[in-house]
Amino acid sequence: MIKLSKILKLDDLKSTQPEYLESIFSIANGHVGIRASDPISPSGNAGTIVNGFYEESNIIYGEKAYGYAEKNQTIVKLPDLRQIIIYDENGNRFIHSQLLDMSLDMSRGILHSFYKVSNDKGESIRLVLTSVINQDKNQFIGLRYEISSDGYAGNIKLIKDFELSETTQNSDDPRKSRGIKTLKYDYVLNSKKQKALKVTTDNSNLSLEMGLYSNVDLNQTLSLNSDPIVFDVIAVVGDINEAISLTNSPSFEDIKEESISFWGKFWNQSEVKIYGDDDLNRAIHFNLYQLESSAGRNGKTNISAKGLSGVGYEGHYFWDTEMYMAPFFAYTNPSIAANLIKYRYSILPEAKKRAQTLGVKDGALYSWRTINGKEASAYYPASTAQYHIDADIAYSIYRYFDVTGDERLIKDYGLEIVLETARFWVNFGSFSEINNQQKFCFFDVTGPDEYSAIVNNNYYTNRMAKFNLAFAVKLITDFPEEAKRLGVDTDELNEFTTIRDAIYLPFDAQKGINEQDDSYFKKPIWPFEDTPKQNYPLLLHYHPLTLYRYQVNKQADTLFADFLFDDISKEQLIKEFDYYERITTHDSSLSRSIFSALAARLGLKEKAYSYFLDTAKTDLIDLQGNTNDGLHIANLGGSWIAIVAGFGGVQIKNNMLYIQNNLPNAWDKMSIRIQYKGRLLNIDYSQDDVQVKIISGDPVNVMINGVKSTVKK
Amino acid sequence: MIKLSKILKLDDLKSTQPEYLESIFSIANGHVGIRASDPISPSGNAGTIVNGFYEESNIIYGEKAYGYAEKNQTIVKLPDLRQIIIYDENGNRFIHSQLLDMSLDMSRGILHSFYKVSNDKGESIRLVLTSVINQDKNQFIGLRYEISSDGYAGNIKLIKDFELSETTQNSDDPRKSRGIKTLKYDYVLNSKKQKALKVTTDNSNLSLEMGLYSNVDLNQTLSLNSDPIVFDVIAVVGDINEAISLTNSPSFEDIKEESISFWGKFWNQSEVKIYGDDDLNRAIHFNLYQLESSAGRNGKTNISAKGLSGVGYEGHYFWDTEMYMAPFFAYTNPSIAANLIKYRYSILPEAKKRAQTLGVKDGALYSWRTINGKEASAYYPASTAQYHIDADIAYSIYRYFDVTGDERLIKDYGLEIVLETARFWVNFGSFSEINNQQKFCFFDVTGPDEYSAIVNNNYYTNRMAKFNLAFAVKLITDFPEEAKRLGVDTDELNEFTTIRDAIYLPFDAQKGINEQDDSYFKKPIWPFEDTPKQNYPLLLHYHPLTLYRYQVNKQADTLFADFLFDDISKEQLIKEFDYYERITTHDSSLSRSIFSALAARLGLKEKAYSYFLDTAKTDLIDLQGNTNDGLHIANLGGSWIAIVAGFGGVQIKNNMLYIQNNLPNAWDKMSIRIQYKGRLLNIDYSQDDVQVKIISGDPVNVMINGVKSTVKK
Repeated sequence: MIKLSKILKLDDLKSTQPEYLESIFSIANGHVGIRASDPISPSGNAGTIVNGFYEESNIIYGEKAYGYAEKNQTIVKLPDLRQIIIYDENGNRFIHSQLLDMSLDMSRGILHSFYKVSNDKGESIRLVLTSVINQDKNQFIGLRYEISSDGYAGNIKLIKDFELSETTQNSDDPRKSRGIKTLKYDYVLNSKKQKALKVTTDNSNLSLEMGLYSNVDLNQTLSLNSDPIVFDVIAVVGDINEAISLTNSPSFEDIKEESISFWGKFWNQSEVKIYGDDDLNRAIHFNLYQLESSAGRNGKTNISAKGLSGVGYEGHYFWDTEMYMAPFFAYTNPSIAANLIKYRYSILPEAKKRAQTLGVKDGALYSWRTINGKEASAYYPASTAQYHIDADIAYSIYRYFDVTGDERLIKDYGLEIVLETARFWVNFGSFSEINNQQKFCFFDVTGPDEYSAIVNNNYYTNRMAKFNLAFAVKLITDFPEEAKRLGVDTDELNEFTTIRDAIYLPFDAQKGINEQDDSYFKKPIWPFEDTPKQNYPLLLHYHPLTLYRYQVNKQADTLFADFLFDDISKEQLIKEFDYYERITTHDSSLSRSIFSALAARLGLKEKAYSYFLDTAKTDLIDLQGNTNDGLHIANLGGSWIAIVAGFGGVQIKNNMLYIQNNLPNAWDKMSIRIQYKGRLLNIDYSQDDVQVKIISGDPVNVMINGVKSTVKK
Repeated sequence: MIKLSKILKLDDLKSTQPEYLESIFSIANGHVGIRASDPISPSGNAGTIVNGFYEESNIIYGEKAYGYAEKNQTIVKLPDLRQIIIYDENGNRFIHSQLLDMSLDMSRGILHSFYKVSNDKGESIRLVLTSVINQDKNQFIGLRYEISSDGYAGNIKLIKDFELSETTQNSDDPRKSRGIKTLKYDYVLNSKKQKALKVTTDNSNLSLEMGLYSNVDLNQTLSLNSDPIVFDVIAVVGDINEAISLTNSPSFEDIKEESISFWGKFWNQSEVKIYGDDDLNRAIHFNLYQLESSAGRNGKTNISAKGLSGVGYEGHYFWDTEMYMAPFFAYTNPSIAANLIKYRYSILPEAKKRAQTLGVKDGALYSWRTINGKEASAYYPASTAQYHIDADIAYSIYRYFDVTGDERLIKDYGLEIVLETARFWVNFGSFSEINNQQKFCFFDVTGPDEYSAIVNNNYYTNRMAKFNLAFAVKLITDFPEEAKRLGVDTDELNEFTTIRDAIYLPFDAQKGINEQDDSYFKKPIWPFEDTPKQNYPLLLHYHPLTLYRYQVNKQADTLFADFLFDDISKEQLIKEFDYYERITTHDSSLSRSIFSALAARLGLKEKAYSYFLDTAKTDLIDLQGNTNDGLHIANLGGSWIAIVAGFGGVQIKNNMLYIQNNLPNAWDKMSIRIQYKGRLLNIDYSQDDVQVKIISGDPVNVMINGVKSTVKK
């Protein structure tokens, strides 16, 4: 049987657990997401999510201190739009539902769900629900219900309305969300064929309107015989704080056509084809499809840790965006990458306030987890102390500019962010004598590896800060007028340059490798041999103080810097990879993709491939066991990084595109599409060859396997 | 006017704020404390506190992790026992109260309060309330009410009952307490002359009975003419989980006699006399009086941070006991010191569990703040990470043994605690190479100075751990049978010895002083010149991360170790004192006493005296601004340390009592009483002489100002 690599069906999955399927088959468009609930008996996690629509509540601390985050920001789980209520002619509800199949067509953005539905007497009907979501006019969702007899014949009564039960549970697991009891629901329209509901949050003071309309009555009694009953419901999900209109709205077919056209274009510019492993190719397509669906595209929203597939991590935006998701967009859909940067620009005022709160006189400190720009993390050692987020955001601007050459965005948004984050480092750090030299140091910080905290001179943090200052110096030099407008003078430029050069990077001469922080190698190595398998992930079984006092990594930290800057010798990189690999648990879903890409760069093909296989299917095999709460969006982006930067060896160095063939042995061929400075490129890799072709745009010089070539159409 | 140094009156105080006076004039006996409320219109903080009677509630975390403290333990504010309700003959309540004076006779333990009380018509009566608390049969409190006419004459109606309103407010200030809504109150007896109330906690499952009885009816109408009305009420406050009996109970006079006898004995063995400053002498007497009143004496309770004078810090026991309060008891009332150690022994099983939770296989880790032995702090960087509490407890056993020579307590309780804490250090630390030597290190710990956290090799912690192991080795050697019974073998003894000798102590060769932790001197010094006065205490105005990245001390840390062990040269101590003094804010009330004692030892007489003056009157001048919540009991103990160990130069070294005359210039003379190995000693200091006399017990050799002398009766 031929299995299509852009169709995902039930038998491609390991589990049929309803909440798990709701996440996997969720559909979204960056603005709104709908979990793929059972329309007859939805799970407690069913619902609709609007990017950036959150409620606030006070964070309660056992012991509070100055400058702690004040309020939770919790993404709202809005009413499930798929649900429908069906009665038989005796008033018995068809309440039992058996899922027969689901089928997500990722080439067109269409989801089919098939159910056998029965009442208490055992009489059955069949229900097929087809759903599709408008991608450009992003308020509209098309729902087509097809009901056919499966034993039961006679009248059926249908009720299509909003489902208002709030069932999200409070939880101590920081990876889940919290319940909200401060939402207000008001019908602003309730006619036969149209309903509109206004949802208002009490504390964050936001509102949102949702509508339903249909070509038939929303409450109706129909006769079910041998012919199926087919009708469409269009759901409308408005923008935050704006009214919706139900007039001149698209039909189901309109939405479907637009979706087909959108996804056609998407794949044309983002395609990744793997020859020789259809399952894996499907997994990659799934990752890219969901990644694209998750990304806010309006400059006011970003990509939450779970995208729009679930309410886990409360819908917050993290560094995940800049370091794991944004690369995909920069290289395939730069306008989304630009909008993600614009979102960061929109919260720059809050970041400036946060720097002040942290006792830093000048500059901006971005919040570790946030929707509205304010810090929403209640545990500062693994959030506020992760100052590196500032440099991560600067890096995403650097990457975007490197790939696109878009000076407009730098002038209007990027420069100011890079400048304010650079100012933060300058005012946050301090000179200290190390080996008889005055070095610029950062004390009491936490790096990406959350199994250490409150350390001095975390390598990743310091390396990124150094980059941030270097990039600021470059932009100030290249855009002198704009820099002047932002208050930069020669003294400041000189200070940036001096500190850039003086930032301390911990290196262990004996081991010949970079050290994760000032004291990392002094600590004992985690007793892996005494750690039973069921004690992973370690964070659920050991006190933070226990983890912190050992050498043990949750994820790539120093190695991540190596991956980004490619600035150490291969010999050192091999040693470093080997050392840190032995102490890394990969308890974070962000870990394996970076290990894969680095292994590929090192020519460790089998290792690269093995890490990749885990990262490629994280959600499809529910590797972390919590896909119920939503997809691991950063990991989806990570799998793209592993393919394109790892196996495909794509890198930009000194304003030149580099391509290196690191294809795994398991694959015959691989094709990828990326953009580079306005061009669309197709790159075909085989075991012994790389072919680069320009699909659109001008010829360009590219370094392929170490040889400079000019590539054309 | 001659002012007596053991009478405290209103005009000795700076404030007449009711809550402040409630704390200052509270009376207690180690079991129960009564805040000195206005009996006519008590403040919201009025109430009764029973040592160790607490309720539990879940600690709510913004973000929770494995091994965090699970439950709050909150001392219960029980009904105020002083309150009385008085009506005039028309049924108008005498509700307005004016405090005329209060007078605490610390030589006898008697508190007089004088009020002018009026109704809404402006008619007045006078009320004198005399209260006294039984110290040995510690359930009884005598209350004598004297009502006289002050314009109003006629019938008055009196109601004496329990006041059941619960007004403690929740607060985010960690130095306050939290409200409790899960108490149940039931009258178990309610007759004319007797009432008994049973208070039950829902979660901690404790109960407590309180009783009232009187020689008259508790509700009565009496005729008030020119003769005053006088009657007694005896309040009974039972032991936790035990019933009370109101038969054969003492009269007011019985209680008073017992109190007079108790305090007479107390002063005989604890007296500190300062000649030339009566105010200061009164402050010292107040400190010792309240310290004695606070201490649990039954081996099941300890001394809470606020004693029994208020519910601040939720009635928890901290290291304060061992390091600030226990010295006074060891030297003046060893049986209380022994009972404080027995309390620690009673919670040893919980400490063993806590070590396991922190990933340490063997040994015991005491909770940073607790009543029942379980950790109750919600902020681990400044609690659980303060592992030094283990060694602090071991040190208090060492001190007790050094002063008393009581082998029985070592065999029955002390050895096991010292052993289990030593085992903790051995299993918690690890060897690491430092300057080409294998040194034993402790990573990710917090020392006493809470303006640093999660550091490596905190000097105080490491020095104390070294002591703990040394003391364990000594006890194992001196008590081989008991050690064997507790599972010690030769291997373990050798391990203790090896690690004791290998523990790393950070020292900065360039500065020639001990370094607070591995990286302390690398950090910049706090910008004191940019810090406005109103930003102290810093913890209320700066994020912990801001404080942590600077050299700034809340309190003595390295210097505290210097004080305890007296093991560095005077030259180094001078340098160290000078260095750390410049960066210490004394934002902790525990700081100044140690600075004073060290300065005295160094001969810095004026400095010692100046620090002492602040520490001596901390509560009487409300130095920290929060005496409302209760007295700073550790500071009371600290002032005794400053006098006896500082000015009096009392120390035990190598089983020999040392006395050094460091008398401040401001004083003509000073006399102190201390105990030493079963003897009661009186030491008289003048500007040019020290006289030591044995009040009871055998002659003993003492080192006085560097000269060995034999002292006799």
